[in-house]
Amino acid sequence: AKTRPQQPSPQTDEEYAERSELFLEDLVDRLEDLAEQRADIEVEYSAGVLNCRLGDGRTYVLNKQPPNKQIWLSSPVSGPKRYDWVVEGEGMNEKQGSGRGSWIYLRDGSSLTELLKEELEVTVDAEGSQG
Amino acid sequence: AKTRPQQPSPQTDEEYAERSELFLEDLVDRLEDLAEQRADIEVEYSAGVLNCRLGDGRTYVLNKQPPNKQIWLSSPVSGPKRYDWVVEGEGMNEKQGSGRGSWIYLRDGSSLTELLKEELEVTVDAEGSQG
Repeated sequence: AKTRPQQPSPQTDEEYAERSELFLEDLVDRLEDLAEQRADIEVEYSAGVLNCRLGDGRTYVLNKQPPNKQIWLSSPVSGPKRYDWVVEGEGMNEKQGSGRGSWIYLRDGSSLTELLKEELEVTVDAEGSQG
Repeated sequence: AKTRPQQPSPQTDEEYAERSELFLEDLVDRLEDLAEQRADIEVEYSAGVLNCRLGDGRTYVLNKQPPNKQIWLSSPVSGPKRYDWVVEGEGMNEKQGSGRGSWIYLRDGSSLTELLKEELEVTVDAEGSQG
């Protein structure tokens, strides 16, 4: 069984800035691909805030929160969540290794990538591709 | 003592669209006034999502959620809240009257206007000015 991470992995302001930007930009690309197939999706990313509106008006918002190095999500399906960066294997307080990690909701250990896959059927693979 | 509202006041899709738009547009105006005095504030309103970023990166997001006729707030100070439209006097299940009302967080009866005044020192007076 996977150990649930208890705390965010340390990262510098620059690492946070790069990781969160890469994640959101990759998500925008995925959502734009989706929008090409489904005319009822509008995607906008500006000033660190990603807004994805579905045809019925349901609106997803993701935004950076630099002071606490989180990504915040507001989902019309599952509500609000705050995600922290957690490096793989850090559940056991291991040393930071490959830099491969995920944006994790620490209350239940679920990842932002999982939620986006479940609710919006998009797969973001930006996570961990940066050192 | 004021009766705490227990439920949202009924409103049509059109009323919701008009009220939420008026509220957010008025808030944008107030925040832009503030931004003129304080260079460290950035305000953006697009596709129903208002983004206000302070100099240290703290980010407020407000967005419409048309399917449930709410305005959602994400505050870096107090977290996420969902606001419903409540007409004044509706705490006692009175008939809808003047149309004057507020966006209320039903869990504690507080208004979005109050929170914005406390946290951002802006006063929105769009509420209720529309019938």
